[in-house]
Amino acid sequence: MIEASGALLTDLYQLTMLQAYFREGMEQEATFELFVRKFPPTRSFLLAAGLEQLLDYLQNLHFKEEDLAWLQGTGFFTPDFLDYLSNFQFKGDLYAMPEGTAFFPNEPIVRVTALLPQAQLVETRLINLIQFQTVIASKAVRSVLAAEGRSLVDFGLRRAHGAEAGLLAARASYLAGFTGTSNVLAAKCFGIPIFGTMAHSYIMAHDDEADAFARFSESLPGNVTLLIDTYDTLEGARKVGNLAATLAKKGISVNWVRIDSGDLGSLARDSRKILDDAGLGGCRIFASGDLDEFAIRQLLRSGAPIDSFGVGTRLVTSEDAPSLNCAYKLEEYAGRPRRKRSKGKDTWPGRKQVFRCFDDRGCMIQDLLTLQGDAEFGEPLLRLVMAKGKPVEPPETLDAMRQRVTDQLQQLPPSLKVLDQPPSAYPVVIGRALQRLVTDMDHVRS
Amino acid sequence: MIEASGALLTDLYQLTMLQAYFREGMEQEATFELFVRKFPPTRSFLLAAGLEQLLDYLQNLHFKEEDLAWLQGTGFFTPDFLDYLSNFQFKGDLYAMPEGTAFFPNEPIVRVTALLPQAQLVETRLINLIQFQTVIASKAVRSVLAAEGRSLVDFGLRRAHGAEAGLLAARASYLAGFTGTSNVLAAKCFGIPIFGTMAHSYIMAHDDEADAFARFSESLPGNVTLLIDTYDTLEGARKVGNLAATLAKKGISVNWVRIDSGDLGSLARDSRKILDDAGLGGCRIFASGDLDEFAIRQLLRSGAPIDSFGVGTRLVTSEDAPSLNCAYKLEEYAGRPRRKRSKGKDTWPGRKQVFRCFDDRGCMIQDLLTLQGDAEFGEPLLRLVMAKGKPVEPPETLDAMRQRVTDQLQQLPPSLKVLDQPPSAYPVVIGRALQRLVTDMDHVRS
Repeated sequence: MIEASGALLTDLYQLTMLQAYFREGMEQEATFELFVRKFPPTRSFLLAAGLEQLLDYLQNLHFKEEDLAWLQGTGFFTPDFLDYLSNFQFKGDLYAMPEGTAFFPNEPIVRVTALLPQAQLVETRLINLIQFQTVIASKAVRSVLAAEGRSLVDFGLRRAHGAEAGLLAARASYLAGFTGTSNVLAAKCFGIPIFGTMAHSYIMAHDDEADAFARFSESLPGNVTLLIDTYDTLEGARKVGNLAATLAKKGISVNWVRIDSGDLGSLARDSRKILDDAGLGGCRIFASGDLDEFAIRQLLRSGAPIDSFGVGTRLVTSEDAPSLNCAYKLEEYAGRPRRKRSKGKDTWPGRKQVFRCFDDRGCMIQDLLTLQGDAEFGEPLLRLVMAKGKPVEPPETLDAMRQRVTDQLQQLPPSLKVLDQPPSAYPVVIGRALQRLVTDMDHVRS
Repeated sequence: MIEASGALLTDLYQLTMLQAYFREGMEQEATFELFVRKFPPTRSFLLAAGLEQLLDYLQNLHFKEEDLAWLQGTGFFTPDFLDYLSNFQFKGDLYAMPEGTAFFPNEPIVRVTALLPQAQLVETRLINLIQFQTVIASKAVRSVLAAEGRSLVDFGLRRAHGAEAGLLAARASYLAGFTGTSNVLAAKCFGIPIFGTMAHSYIMAHDDEADAFARFSESLPGNVTLLIDTYDTLEGARKVGNLAATLAKKGISVNWVRIDSGDLGSLARDSRKILDDAGLGGCRIFASGDLDEFAIRQLLRSGAPIDSFGVGTRLVTSEDAPSLNCAYKLEEYAGRPRRKRSKGKDTWPGRKQVFRCFDDRGCMIQDLLTLQGDAEFGEPLLRLVMAKGKPVEPPETLDAMRQRVTDQLQQLPPSLKVLDQPPSAYPVVIGRALQRLVTDMDHVRS
């Protein structure tokens, strides 16, 4: 298989710019920041994610012999520059919001300070890693809000955009509060709890549905989930009810039934009654099929007796907002702040920090975006996570990130947690020092 | 870095079902088919893609020692089953539509016939690989239609959903008719032409924009593209004009300017005039920034003198349709056809083939979906591509696939190539043998 990693996982212009910097001797210190300019219309907050994979990438970034040989063959690069690339390493400093931190428009979530070529080259993969997990964590947390404590399982691998998307979506959704994933590799790589049921094909491969239920239960007696909608959902529920006594004699209980099609709310209600009447009050109902936060909320508001949800396609593609309007911009070079003024894409210059202010109940009231060192109150959100190319501490656990998300959901103003109306804006105040810097820079230019 | 590949890149239920089949001795031959049930509201045809990666996956599928050790630790699996997995290989037959084939709802694009456990286990990654590239090729071809022969470059890596998505999106968009990509690794892996310009940061790192232009041109004299919108686009164009004479003395010509923000149409027109007035009639204009097929068509209809487009985020996320309603369903087991009847998700049973019919000018007029061997006319679209786990011929070249797409765009009814109105339906007729089979199966059941 193709290996989708390494130093060549970048845009050509990064390398041609690096060659120009190499020729020009432009190797002074630069600061770049990653931020989201404008939020999707359905998001009033986002959750930062993907930092662990970014740190991993930065530490391991190097050009292999075969990469350099291939680059030589493109004709774009001179031998002395390729020689320079052979020694390339990332040795910069990183400030970042810890994973699971809620953030708002224009707030930097990652700040890189490194020699210009180092800070530039990493742009493509840095955005690729942080953007995607941030998209998914921010989508997943909406299902967490909608599910009101019920468990949620990521079912998205098959419709994720490739292998890495499936893997990282499992991580990002777990980070945001999902209970687990169906993705076996994600369970192995990240220690995420793993869940599985059965496919319709299993039922269909047997000549008789009840027979399929019995055999599957005997094969995995500790963990029985039966899919009841292959032919007729309520008939399926009745077959489970009829089977229960036989299985109970063998010490097997049916823990879950799963419904994957039709009117999930009404089928769950009718199935619940059938199961209860059969004495299966402890058998819970798992629902899946084109679910997202809106469908989950609607089902629960209508009183559907569903205990857990499998969420797939709409989660891992973040269907309503599959990308963020994010940018990684040069804010300072050689000790001087820099500012892009392209129409609608102008930037806040300088090395910045975000300070978060809380009321006396611990509820977030505003953020202050300003130059590093300017604020005198509030909690600084960007922390030093890498110094001279080395992480300053061991990777945070996913449990710690999950706890952070839970805490943040408590602290967020309630108006930001509403799913189905236009998002309300959280105040991000621009600090005086930053305002002054912009005024001064534009004054000099004009 | 995490390696997003291998046999564990699957859903847990595939493995628990396999264990049940293993216990039950259910190892007869099964046929599964992958198809798209219902198309996104903006797609009247889709392009099949991703087959090469699927064949690669199927040939290399095996469980490593460490996979098995990890599976053992989960507690779901018995030692005899894990031993069975250690010898697992895919030895089935595959029929598939060649990459770049246009297809329609309910038409199988891949048909797998193998022993039941083999055909089942591969489901997750099979969908993951085929769905994503099909999504992207089908999105990309819309920009190809809109660009009316102008060149298109994939700029999407940074906002793709992970590394593999970036890599495979470059492949799928090239397959669909893009000219190339900015993605260096995709160029190396697939031989796709590679393009690059410069970032705003390059301009901003220099104290003077004109100086940045001059230095970049000298660094890459054979391939000069200058980004002119960092501060003021028309001022940028004038600086290029002023610089041209100096560069010409050094034998360097400015091949392209790039505009990445603002009103691209009017800026392109005004820049064109400035460049022409400066004697730079041969310098072409490259546009980028939130582009998709609709923006490209609108720019060209308004007469914008743009020669090439960079398309990123909206392409690689397929923003308006980031997933397909596709399914991989059991159609036959142990010599008997199978049919799922879940509400809204019922399937056409049996091993099927799609026959395409053309009028005497070579224009497609209808497809016939029926059982393999039923039709007496039309071109069969599913071809044998793998027999007993081995590809029947060497991988097709991307050039051959691109040619197929070009040919298909000629053959498609013009009403299907309209971008901005509800899609028109292409007739997919259900063959008599298939209709009869369904009637018979439902009759037996009821």
